[in-house]
Parts: sequence; structure tokens; C-alpha cells
Amino acid sequence: MKREQVTEKILDGKRAKGLSWKTIAKEIGGNSPVLITAALLGQMRLDPAQAEKAAKLFGLTKDEAAVLTETPYRGSLPPGPPTDPLIYRFYELVQVYGTTWKALIEEEFGEGGRPADGIMSAIDYDMTIEKQPDPKGDRVKIVMTGKFLHYKRY
Amino acid sequence: MKREQVTEKILDGKRAKGLSWKTIAKEIGGNSPVLITAALLGQMRLDPAQAEKAAKLFGLTKDEAAVLTETPYRGSLPPGPPTDPLIYRFYELVQVYGTTWKALIEEEFGEGGRPADGIMSAIDYDMTIEKQPDPKGDRVKIVMTGKFLHYKRY
Amino acid sequence: MKREQVTEKILDGKRAKGLSWKTIAKEIGGNSPVLITAALLGQMRLDPAQAEKAAKLFGLTKDEAAVLTETPYRGSLPPGPPTDPLIYRFYELVQVYGTTWKALIEEEFGEGGRPADGIMSAIDYDMTIEKQPDPKGDRVKIVMTGKFLHYKRY
Amino acid sequence: MKREQVTEKILDGKRAKGLSWKTIAKEIGGNSPVLITAALLGQMRLDPAQAEKAAKLFGLTKDEAAVLTETPYRGSLPPGPPTDPLIYRFYELVQVYGTTWKALIEEEFGEGGRPADGIMSAIDYDMTIEKQPDPKGDRVKIVMTGKFLHYKRY
Amino acid sequence: MKREQVTEKILDGKRAKGLSWKTIAKEIGGNSPVLITAALLGQMRLDPAQAEKAAKLFGLTKDEAAVLTETPYRGSLPPGPPTDPLIYRFYELVQVYGTTWKALIEEEFGEGGRPADGIMSAIDYDMTIEKQPDPKGDRVKIVMTGKFLHYKRY
Amino acid sequence: MKREQVTEKILDGKRAKGLSWKTIAKEIGGNSPVLITAALLGQMRLDPAQAEKAAKLFGLTKDEAAVLTETPYRGSLPPGPPTDPLIYRFYELVQVYGTTWKALIEEEFGEGGRPADGIMSAIDYDMTIEKQPDPKGDRVKIVMTGKFLHYKRY
Amino acid sequence: MKREQVTEKILDGKRAKGLSWKTIAKEIGGNSPVLITAALLGQMRLDPAQAEKAAKLFGLTKDEAAVLTETPYRGSLPPGPPTDPLIYRFYELVQVYGTTWKALIEEEFGEGGRPADGIMSAIDYDMTIEKQPDPKGDRVKIVMTGKFLHYKRY
Amino acid sequence: MKREQVTEKILDGKRAKGLSWKTIAKEIGGNSPVLITAALLGQMRLDPAQAEKAAKLFGLTKDEAAVLTETPYRGSLPPGPPTDPLIYRFYELVQVYGTTWKALIEEEFGEGGRPADGIMSAIDYDMTIEKQPDPKGDRVKIVMTGKFLHYKRY
Amino acid sequence: MKREQVTEKILDGKRAKGLSWKTIAKEIGGNSPVLITAALLGQMRLDPAQAEKAAKLFGLTKDEAAVLTETPYRGSLPPGPPTDPLIYRFYELVQVYGTTWKALIEEEFGEGGRPADGIMSAIDYDMTIEKQPDPKGDRVKIVMTGKFLHYKRY
Amino acid sequence: MKREQVTEKILDGKRAKGLSWKTIAKEIGGNSPVLITAALLGQMRLDPAQAEKAAKLFGLTKDEAAVLTETPYRGSLPPGPPTDPLIYRFYELVQVYGTTWKALIEEEFGEGGRPADGIMSAIDYDMTIEKQPDPKGDRVKIVMTGKFLHYKRY
Repeated sequence: MKREQVTEKILDGKRAKGLSWKTIAKEIGGNSPVLITAALLGQMRLDPAQAEKAAKLFGLTKDEAAVLTETPYRGSLPPGPPTDPLIYRFYELVQVYGTTWKALIEEEFGEGGRPADGIMSAIDYDMTIEKQPDPKGDRVKIVMTGKFLHYKRY
Repeated sequence: MKREQVTEKILDGKRAKGLSWKTIAKEIGGNSPVLITAALLGQMRLDPAQAEKAAKLFGLTKDEAAVLTETPYRGSLPPGPPTDPLIYRFYELVQVYGTTWKALIEEEFGEGGRPADGIMSAIDYDMTIEKQPDPKGDRVKIVMTGKFLHYKRY
Repeated sequence: MKREQVTEKILDGKRAKGLSWKTIAKEIGGNSPVLITAALLGQMRLDPAQAEKAAKLFGLTKDEAAVLTETPYRGSLPPGPPTDPLIYRFYELVQVYGTTWKALIEEEFGEGGRPADGIMSAIDYDMTIEKQPDPKGDRVKIVMTGKFLHYKRY
Repeated sequence: MKREQVTEKILDGKRAKGLSWKTIAKEIGGNSPVLITAALLGQMRLDPAQAEKAAKLFGLTKDEAAVLTETPYRGSLPPGPPTDPLIYRFYELVQVYGTTWKALIEEEFGEGGRPADGIMSAIDYDMTIEKQPDPKGDRVKIVMTGKFLHYKRY
Repeated sequence: MKREQVTEKILDGKRAKGLSWKTIAKEIGGNSPVLITAALLGQMRLDPAQAEKAAKLFGLTKDEAAVLTETPYRGSLPPGPPTDPLIYRFYELVQVYGTTWKALIEEEFGEGGRPADGIMSAIDYDMTIEKQPDPKGDRVKIVMTGKFLHYKRY
Repeated sequence: MKREQVTEKILDGKRAKGLSWKTIAKEIGGNSPVLITAALLGQMRLDPAQAEKAAKLFGLTKDEAAVLTETPYRGSLPPGPPTDPLIYRFYELVQVYGTTWKALIEEEFGEGGRPADGIMSAIDYDMTIEKQPDPKGDRVKIVMTGKFLHYKRY
Repeated sequence: MKREQVTEKILDGKRAKGLSWKTIAKEIGGNSPVLITAALLGQMRLDPAQAEKAAKLFGLTKDEAAVLTETPYRGSLPPGPPTDPLIYRFYELVQVYGTTWKALIEEEFGEGGRPADGIMSAIDYDMTIEKQPDPKGDRVKIVMTGKFLHYKRY
Repeated sequence: MKREQVTEKILDGKRAKGLSWKTIAKEIGGNSPVLITAALLGQMRLDPAQAEKAAKLFGLTKDEAAVLTETPYRGSLPPGPPTDPLIYRFYELVQVYGTTWKALIEEEFGEGGRPADGIMSAIDYDMTIEKQPDPKGDRVKIVMTGKFLHYKRY
Repeated sequence: MKREQVTEKILDGKRAKGLSWKTIAKEIGGNSPVLITAALLGQMRLDPAQAEKAAKLFGLTKDEAAVLTETPYRGSLPPGPPTDPLIYRFYELVQVYGTTWKALIEEEFGEGGRPADGIMSAIDYDMTIEKQPDPKGDRVKIVMTGKFLHYKRY
Repeated sequence: MKREQVTEKILDGKRAKGLSWKTIAKEIGGNSPVLITAALLGQMRLDPAQAEKAAKLFGLTKDEAAVLTETPYRGSLPPGPPTDPLIYRFYELVQVYGTTWKALIEEEFGEGGRPADGIMSAIDYDMTIEKQPDPKGDRVKIVMTGKFLHYKRY
């Protein structure tokens, strides 16, 4: 069984039942909607109890539910820059702001006037997505925090 | 004259004078440190008044200062996934969370139970980067907001 | 269910019934033929009412019709420069005129003798395609307008 | 001598003199601003008389002016999808609308209910770019016409 | 239905009946063997009358025959330089002679000692392939003519 | 010394003296204009006597002339499909006609109703390029012959 | 029917019967084991008589046997450098020795102190593979000969 | 100092003195012409004594000679399949014979009817290149031997 | 039958029975867990006796078990840098430490103050993976040894 | 100033003085030879005190020494799989063992029979390289430890 097959079955179930991700995430519970959506889209994993709830919601077999509790081979996009405009914009931000992130994060975590050498973890990481009402047009607000990891000197 | 040459001269000046991006941004003023750093790294542009201050700071010629006021050909990275670990982690987030962003942003901006069709603008966009103290290890906190743009139906 | 499967079923139905895109667009109504064709080819979405008409026209199931109302993962072409000559010519225009578009659009939207920094939106965007009779050979006429978006300065 | 060197010299001259493309195009004359800008950016060529005027404007040598009258090796962008957002949006349009253009142009030029087999020429081609004032935000308006070329049947 | 499926069925039929392309082309008639072979391999299209004959020859359904009359999404090769040696040699010619073709064709179509700016059309194009007996080893002779298209100056 | 430097010097000389490839080829003599142009563009080599003439024509040093008599590392184009439209059209022909060439050349050189297994040589190969006057628009006529090489069975 | 399907069936048959390539090649006969193995792996073709024997050996249908007598679309590897270590080592030899082969083969076939301009044919080519016993560890010995083809001067 | 600069200087010296690789290899001595040529082309290294002789032959400085004794970063070709026809043919052999080499080498080194699992070393490897006179056209003969390395089972 | 199908069946069996790799490796025995896991994931091969045990464990057919004893076409990842974060980190190490490994391994195996020219074998190679408890967070400890192979001088 | 220029100067100095990495690392001190070599090759950074020592050793200017204390844009290899055989072998290990590392590391760090979801850090990471004498041929021994990072569940 391939993870993509389970993902496709989940999307079919979501469509047939007319569910929203928000409802699904509430139903499954235990983590933020971001993490649960990512898991159902094949990029994170669910706890066994969550998977059981997902199985009920989408009519998954026991084996399919088990697949949801496994760490997936991550990577949700076809090779090359993403062609979907919504996703591409984030890729564009990496292109435009990549070197700026490097400069400012290293400086921010430095000491004694010397920038740090390290990275923002993408593993010890969390994120929220919300709508920020704005009279000039509502805005997407994304807040992410990731632990700063210092390069080990050995 | 190529933009990269001006960028390199700025980095040489910054190193020679032992300046931080924070100091530089304060000196130049008028915009957030993020935007000013991005401009000095060749991805945004400065206003003429800002460019004049940058010229003084880094000993740029009049023509070099003028280059800083021009819109650059954006894209700060060599082709292919970025090899630098700090920058790569952001690319990894696009790989892991790309489809999740698409699912949740569309849903968040929907109406009447129907997701919206649109994107988060990377143009009408802003960002802050800060250190979030944490007893388990300080965290990088990035807050970004981008205007939600609805696909025009015509 | 995958969007491509629905697209293929639509193309099969179109062929079997001998329908033209013009007829189909008129039948479905509510938007320009360009947008409706793009939706049926898997790059835009239909409103529920439009999808219902499409379902009738092509004998789609309720679930297949629902798929047409979802925002697709956009990108209609295999990776790499398009190999089909008709589509390649547009890619060629990007290659030949890309930097010219950048120069002239920024200048056109500038103020006080200073070019603007921004882009033409591909989201708040529309387009028409028509035949322009010409004694030396009829011409394809494409008119596109996209909102100019100024880079936010923050 | 390489074409890029001449292009760079022209951009340096334009900056030093504070000229706009519009002014330059008027000065050089004989063709639309689009074509003249494209030529100065290394993608089209100038007539000898135009090149002479360009030489005066930018202080080019006789050999540099001669280069401007030669057909360039066209292609203004580095390999891979363009990283500059303004130019990328046009690439995105090819991704999103490529198959739609193919479907509608072939149908538009068909006869007797049968779509034509052919392409829109990118050689016998012209284009205008203008600002279209709009209370909801000014728009970029691009009008392009290209001769329809029927695939020869032999 | 996908074009490749029809192509595969045609190749299966050709093999089963032991037909040559020459025989097939004569049977279908109306165009050169080159064009008809290309159409059956999914790169050109047939007229309805030709498609009917092809249907008889290969036992195609009405829908499959209809597919043959549609303009295909052209491009007969996997991405990257072709790995098949016979086809690769033509790719090699483009690599070795590309710039020579550009130099000589532009010069050949020039006037008043000035090379033309244009291309050889690949649309208004024909080709023959034949065996040229030669005591030192028979040769493949390919004759191609394509209309010269002048870049429009506007 | 790199071959590209010699090529650039030759192009500079050609421009300065206002020479055509036809004149140059006549001056150098001994081979067809195609081969001589290809050699001067860095894809073929000249005989020592030809190189001497080229040296006189373009004011090359003895070492530069010697470079012209060496077999170059062939390949005149940057990686990826060629971006120049004139050259791209030939690449497009490989894409569209590649499998047709394979089918017809193998059949043409077969015996006893069985196609041959072999290729058209790109080494034992010649080519002419000429203008074919045509009231509907002059045509580029390219005639190429390459020895058919049978795959050795061992 | 696709060539790969026949290859897979052959590999299944070989496994089920526990046959070695050596035995298979002897059984089929008429050519070297190298050529026959390559044919069964989909890179060369068999004569009709050989294909008949292969059909018996592997229980192929008449059509599958016919596929084996057709010239395949050659290229046995996925795109990109081969990932399998045994095959990669040969790719590595091309990387390391490519320019050396060019230098020495051209010199070896030269006359009058002048290197030849030509290639080693990969079509008029043969090869043997054998084990060369060696007290320090047995060695793979590969002997290949290919006809030297002079570039035609025309 | 970069290895390529030394290589270029050596090629310049070879050209100026009219030396052949054979003569150079004899002069430098101690290893086969293949290995010495590869070293001078930047893919192998020379012993200090050999480097000294090379330095005399080509007028290299002491530092340049030292570079020749260092292990180079190997890889003599630009990325992508090699465009030079002579070198490409070897790449083509990898494409056509890659899976055959794998099948036959594993079988040749097997025991008890079971193929071995291992590779031909490209490190403990040697090669000769010679001309094999042949009335039907002289042939390039390449003999290579590489130690068979068994995959360690642990 | 394709190796991937057997791998998928094994993973399905492992999931259904709730087995760990450690248990499986102990059950199959004869080699380290690393090698056995790699074999079951399609990158190494099992001995016939091991394959028989695997067949029992996962309910494989005789033919499927036989596939496990064959040397696979190695390469466990899709093309391009791996998108899965755990695997990517190893790729990152190659990017960051590649040239350091080259410098230090060559030096470590040198003699008389001169670095060796050779590589670490990836064939005569073994590896262990274990958890190294650490109060600041447990660590993954990987120990690998590979035979040093000297480049043969011939 | 570019980091590569400083790296090149260091390599030139190392060659001219005949220094080994071991000696250099001892001279600079404070960290392992691996980290110091990596820093001098442009992939890690030195502390100011270390940089000062390096400056003395290699005759660097104050600015060049300052560059060594900056975090580099990491990535020591040209794009694509590494062509140098020593470095490629590590890339090959990623290809062959990637999925095995994922399976075993996740299992090793699991609890209660459930594999963990996390990665081995490449930042909180150390490594040693040494020679392991072996009568059958000395071996390279690499020991690496990296902190296991659990995916944060939020």
C-alpha cells in the first residue's frame, strides 16, 4: 500500500462528506489543524488514537489507518519549482529572502557583536495560519517558530 | 555595472567597518531592517534618500548608489535547491507544508462553506524576524503577512 | 479521484458529442470561454451551478462534478520547456521579451520619473483570444490585463 | 566583443544620464518602444540608422554600434523558470493557460467545425504595453497579435 | 483516451499484419509518407477520411479514429537529449551546426549586404527522406524546406 | 588559449571588415561554406593552409591559427533546449519528427521486407543550405546526406 | 505492447527456470552472448530465427517474439547519472577519461604528425567481457573495438 | 591557482612546440601514455619526478608543477551528457550496454550457478588504446581491466 | 515482477504483523540488521536461505523470494536531492563535508608526507547504527568503515 | 571579496609551504582537524583567534582573516551528483542506504514499540576520520554522531 493511495482516499471521503479541514482537525483532535492537515496530506503522521478517528471519518481499513501512523517519506511536491501559484509564492520568498534570512537570523542569535552560526530548525518547529482582517484587503498571517540550533564546534 | 558588484562592495564595507545589519538599517532608516537588508543584498531597492545614506556608509560612487535605487532582477540563490543549510530549511518547509498551506489558506478565506480560490501575495507582503526566548532553547520567530488575492473570475 | 481523470473524461465526452469549446462555454455560461475552458482542462474551477451543467453535458458523476469546483493544483504542462510548438511560442516570448516587460512595465507605472517596483498580477488577471482578420494572413489577437501590484514597502 | 557587454554599457549610460526607455525610444525612433527596448536589451536588432543614434546617446564605439545591428543569439533569461517575480508571472501564465491557448486558438482558426492545426507566430508578431487606469487599481494591458500559421500538409 | 494508447494500438496492428510504413502510407494516401507516419506516431493529425482508412487498417473504434484527427500535444521524446542513437544524431547536428545554421540562413536571406533577421519555419515546412545509393555505402538523404519568416518590425 | 577567444576575435574581425560568410568561405576555400563557417564558429577544424588564410583575414597570431586546425570540443550551444528561435526550430523538428525519422530510415534501408537496424551518420555527413525562391515566400532548403551505418552484429 | 513488458516477461522466465545468460545465449545462438543479452534486455534486436528460440525458451506469444525482432528505442537507464554502482563506474570512466580518449584516439589515427578528426563508432562496434584471473583478485576484462570514422570534409 | 589554468598552459605549450601526446608521455615516462595524458588533462596526478619533467617541457613554475602532483577534483566534462561526438559515443555505450554489463559481469564472477554481487573497480583499473588495422576500415581497440570487487556482506 | 512490488509486499506484511526491523533481522539472521534491512528495502540481496525465511515471514511466493536473492538495480531515491528531511541531512553532509573528506582521507593514507590518491570503497564497506545516550539529548551514532583503494598507476 | 578567493589563497599557501592539514590544524588548534579543514575549505568558520593564526600561516590580510570568521554560504560542490570518485562514493551511500537509515534510525529512537519521528541533526553533529589498519587492506573509519531531533508535535 502506498501513502498516496491513502491520501487520495481521504480526499475522496472529505469531498463526499463535504467536510472542511477545520472540522476534520477538530474531530481528530490532539494537535493543531496545521499538523493534522499535513498528516492527512501525507507529510506528518498521526498518533494511533488519531488514526483510529481518521479511519472512522473516512472509512479506512485497519491497514490504511496504520499507514497514517507511519512516518512518511516527506516531500509533497513534484520535482522542480512548484507550478501551483499559491505554493510557488512561498518558493519565491525563499528565492528573494533566502540570503536575508541567513544574514538576520545569524545576527539575531549572535553574542558579543558576533553573529551566531546556526539554523532555524524545521523539525522543532511550529506554525499557525490565520486570516488577518484588513480594510485594504484581508491578509494571510503565518507565524512560525523554530528552535535556533547552533552549529556544534568539536 | 552589475548589481552583484555593488552587493560585494557593501559586504566588504560592512566587514571592514564591523557593522551589524541592525546598525546599518537604523542608519539608513525609513523601512524595516528586513527590507533594508534585502535591498543591500540585491533583492529589494532603496529610495534615493536611503541610497545616499548607504553610499556614505559604504563609500559608494554616485552610480553605485543609483544602482541601489533600481529594481533588481530578483533571485538570490544559485539554481537548484539551496545548498546552505539555514536557507535549505525554508525550502524544506515548502516541500513539507506546500500542500497544507494551499489547503488551509484556501479554506480560511472561503465563504459559505466553500474554500476561496486565491493566493497569499508575495508582493503586498511583509515580515518580521525576532528571537523568542525559550528555556528549552531560544526560537526564531518569523511573522509574515501577505494580502490574500482572489483569482479574478471573468 | 484525480483531476486528470475528470479532464480526460471531459475530453472524451467532447469528442464523442462533437462539441466545440465555444458551444460548451455558452452552455455552461457565467464566465468567459477562456476561463471555462481552462477550468475544464483542470486549471481553473467552476462554480457549483456551472459544474452541474458540465456534469450533464459530459455525464459526470456527482463526485466528478464536485472535483470541478475544487481549486486544482495548477500547472498544465510536463516539466521543462513545453514541447508543443503552439505552447512553446509563448514560452519563447517569455525568453525574448522577459526583460523588456520588466523594464517597460516598471517604467509605465512609475511616478515622478522614477519607475515603480511591482508586477502584473497573474491572479487579478483576465484575457481574451480572438481572430483578427488580415489580408496578409489572419492574426491571433490576445488581450490581457492584470492589476499592477506595487511591492509593499514596510 | 559580446552583446552583453554592449547591453551593460547601455544600461550604465541610461542610468548616468537619467533617461527613460520612453525617451530613448523616441530619440532612436522608427519602431515601437517595445521593439527598441528589446533591441537595447539584446533581444532584437536595430537598423544602422537607429544604431547610430543609439551610439550617440550612449557613447558607443563604431564596433559597439555595429553589434546592435546584428541579430542576437536570443534568450534573455538564465536557465530554469525565471526567478524574478515580474517575469515569472508570465511564465506562470504559460503553465496555467498553455493548454487553453492551444485549445482555443486551434478552434478559433478552424473551418467547417473542425479546429485548425497551427500556431500563433512569435516572429510575425507585435505587442503593445500600456497602463489601463482602473479605480480598483490600475492595470497592465498587453495586446499581442501574431500571424496564425497553418501546419503545412505535404 | 490518450493519444499514446491509440499509437500503441496502431503499432500492435502494424506488427500483427506485417505492414510497412510505406504500404500504410499508400493505403491511407493524400499526403506524403513522412506526414502520415508522423500522424500515426502521434505527432501530426489525419483528415477524417484518412482516419477512417486508418481505422479500417488497424481496427480502431470510432473514438480512436477521432483522436487521430485531433491536433496532438506534440513532442515525441522523453525529456533530456534523446537516448536512441538514430535520433540522437539529429540532436547532435543541432549542437554542432546550430550556430552555423543561424549564421548562414540569416545571411542567405539578407538584402543589400545585410543579413536578414528571421527563421526557417518548422510549421510551413516539408521534408522527404530517401536512400541515395553510393558505392562507398548508401546514404540517407533528407531534403527539408521551410518558409523563411522575417521578424516583424513594428 | 581557449577556442571561444579565437571565435570571438574572428567575429570581431568579420564585423570590423564588414565581411560576409560567403566571402570568407571563398577566400579560405577548399571546402563548402557550411564547413568553413562551422570551423570558424568553433565546431569544425581548418586545414593548416586554410588556417593560414584565416589568420591573414582576421589578423590572428600563429598560435591562434594553430588552434583553428585542432579538433574542437564540439557543442555550440548552452545546456538545455536552445533559446534562440532560429536554432530552436531545428530542435523542435527533432522533438516532432524524431520517431518518424527512426521509423522511416530503418524501413528505407531494410531488406526482404525487414527494416534495417542502423543510423544516419553525423560524421560521414554533408549538408547544403540555399534559398529556394517561392512566390508564396522564399524557402530555406537544406539538403543533408549521411552514410547509413548498420549496427554490427557480432 | 511495450518492449519493457517483454523484457520483464523474459526476466521472469529466466528466474523461474533458473537459467544463466550464458545458457540462454548458447540456446539462442548466432551471435555473441553480449549482443544476445543486450537484445533480451531491450537494447538490441534478434533475428526472426533467434526470436523464435527465445519465444520457446520463455513462453512468449508470437507477437511478443515479433517485438524482439524490432529495433528498440534504445537507452536502458533512467535519466541522470546511473544510480547503480556497477553501471555508474562506467559513467565515471567517461567523466574521468573522456578528454583523454578524445586526445589519444584523434592522435592515434592521425597522419603526418597531424591528429585525425573523427570518432570511434558505437554502431560498427563489438565487445567481449571476460574474467581475467589474477592472484591479487580476479579482474573484469572488457575489450571493445569500434571502427574509426573520419569526419567527412565537404 | 586552479588546475584548469595549469592544463591550459600545458595545452598552449604542446601546441607551440608541436608535440604529440606520445612524445610527451615518452619524455615524462614512468607510466602508460593513457595515465600521463589524463594527468596532464587534469584527471590524474604525476609523481614529483614526472612533474619536474613536465615542468621543463612546458615551462611551468615550481608551484604549477606542484599542482600536477596533487590529486585533482576529478570530472573532465561539463554537466549533462557530453556534447562532443567522440566522447558522447562512450556515454551512449553506457546507455545501451549498462544493464548488459551488469547482467554479464555479475554472472561471470558468480559461483555455484549464482551470480556474484559486486562491481568492476574504476580505481584499480587500467586501459590501453590502440589502432587495430582492418581492411574494412581501421578500428579503435580499447582494452580495460578493473578488479572485481565483491560487495562485502557484514 | 519488479523489485518494488516485492518491497511493497514486505512493507505491507511488516505493518500487518507489527514487526520491527530488529525482530525481522534477527529472524532472518546471518548478517547485520543494516544489511538485511537494506536488502528488504531493495538495495542489497539476501542469500537463498535468508530469502526463504523472509518468504515465510511475509508470505512471499517462491518467485518473489527468488527476486530477493538477485542483485537489485541499486538507487533507493527519486532523482534530485532527497526531499525527506532525515535522508536529506546525509546529502547535506556530502555537500558540506565532501571536499573535507577528500582532503583528509587522501592525507591520512599518504606516505612520506605525500597524500595518497585513492578512495574509500562503498563496496567493501560496512556500517553500524546505534543510539548513543546523552544527557543533552540522545545521539545517533554511525560508524562506517570502507577499504581504502589506491588508484592503480599503470 | 569572495570566500572562494580566500580558499584559493589558503590552498596556494599550503602548497608553497608544503604543509599538511594535520599540521595546519594543530597550528590553529581549538577544534578537531575535521572542523578546521572544513573551515579553511570554506564550509565552516573559525573563531577570531583561530583566524589570526591562519592569517599568519598563509599570509592573509586582515580582511581575508575576517572572512574566515564569517559563516559561509555552505555547499562545497558543483550542482548535480559529485563527479569526483572519492566524494561520489558518499553520495552513492546516500542513494543505497538512504531509506535504510530512515527505517533504522526512526526505529532505534522509538518508544513502546513505536518508531520515533525525527532526524539525525547535521548541525549538532561531529565526526572523526581515521585509518583502521587491516591486514586485508587498511580501512577508512568514519564515526559520526548527530543529536536525534524529534519532530515537534504542536
